Amino acid sequence: MVRRGGGAPRRDDAGAPPGAGAAVTTTEFDLAEGIAVLERTPGVLRAWLADLPEPWIRADEGPDTWTPFDIVGHLIDGEETDWIPRSRIILAQGADRRFTPYDRFRHLRLADGATLGGRLERFAALRAGNLVTLRGWTLTPAQLALTGEHPEFGTVTLAQLIATWVAHDLDHLMQLARVMGKRYAAAAGPWRAYLRVLQS
Amino acid sequence: MVRRGGGAPRRDDAGAPPGAGAAVTTTEFDLAEGIAVLERTPGVLRAWLADLPEPWIRADEGPDTWTPFDIVGHLIDGEETDWIPRSRIILAQGADRRFTPYDRFRHLRLADGATLGGRLERFAALRAGNLVTLRGWTLTPAQLALTGEHPEFGTVTLAQLIATWVAHDLDHLMQLARVMGKRYAAAAGPWRAYLRVLQS
Repeated sequence: MVRRGGGAPRRDDAGAPPGAGAAVTTTEFDLAEGIAVLERTPGVLRAWLADLPEPWIRADEGPDTWTPFDIVGHLIDGEETDWIPRSRIILAQGADRRFTPYDRFRHLRLADGATLGGRLERFAALRAGNLVTLRGWTLTPAQLALTGEHPEFGTVTLAQLIATWVAHDLDHLMQLARVMGKRYAAAAGPWRAYLRVLQS
Repeated sequence: MVRRGGGAPRRDDAGAPPGAGAAVTTTEFDLAEGIAVLERTPGVLRAWLADLPEPWIRADEGPDTWTPFDIVGHLIDGEETDWIPRSRIILAQGADRRFTPYDRFRHLRLADGATLGGRLERFAALRAGNLVTLRGWTLTPAQLALTGEHPEFGTVTLAQLIATWVAHDLDHLMQLARVMGKRYAAAAGPWRAYLRVLQS
């Protein structure tokens, strides 16, 4: 991002100035809108990462941080163990509505020998199947208000869980851009001062 | 992002802990790697935004911040007025190598009546043409070391300019994820604490 040459006050081109968060209008969850994001994520990842040179795929932010390859593995874990299984616990409304903790590091332990291309396709297939399930439920507002028990937060609603599924996708797309962008923090030279991605 | 239920210390699931920046290994610019990112961005944006419900396209982070629609307009401005025109100034090595300031708000003034779909296609066409130009130059290391004069930074190299083009794409993909993710800061309920995108 290149700042104008004139005398305008400096402003972060990448978005809101720090501290502007209070002005943001947040929105209640809308299932159809949420699904519109969820169904696009596999295609976004494929367009972004498929056949990308290996140094980008293996880039990280330092020790104990994730590469793009790791991020896709983590998204697969979510499809397999988190969003739909937890939704089922809520919808069943059994005596024990406590969720199994989400193992965020599962993908790092599974020595599955996967390639990035394989992970991208697996994620796409899992996501597609999970959206068939979600749409098939034709959830009512009353169902979206049903609750389960998060192991740390306590009571949460189905709407909050599915909204988090959406925001979680966006969180990791943000991470992906950040991890990759940081590789060029030095290469960009003095422009670093105007690119938030190089400062984060 | 859902934290494990166990007793592990809290760690930001979205990537590096704050302050970890010093540990990041930055990389010198590689033209082929850079082009691999640049050529993918139009497809990433199309997969992410095409036909997305309007509330996502018009979401922002508060007053004087950009929507996804604005971001695509800004990327178009870069293709038309910044990266290649500035590269030409450097490569010409004329007496005056000073860049024209980049008008970051040009897209907000141009009442072009564009739709998002139109902008996505226009960006894709401009980017494709600019990459034909860039590849056609078959730049040597000596050419990548040639310099121009940034109106504020002073002397910069062609390699820095092109590395910034790449990082600028990633910066705005990060912004896109952030702008959209913030819409669900309230809807995600207590999970907000574990999603960096909802806190930024």
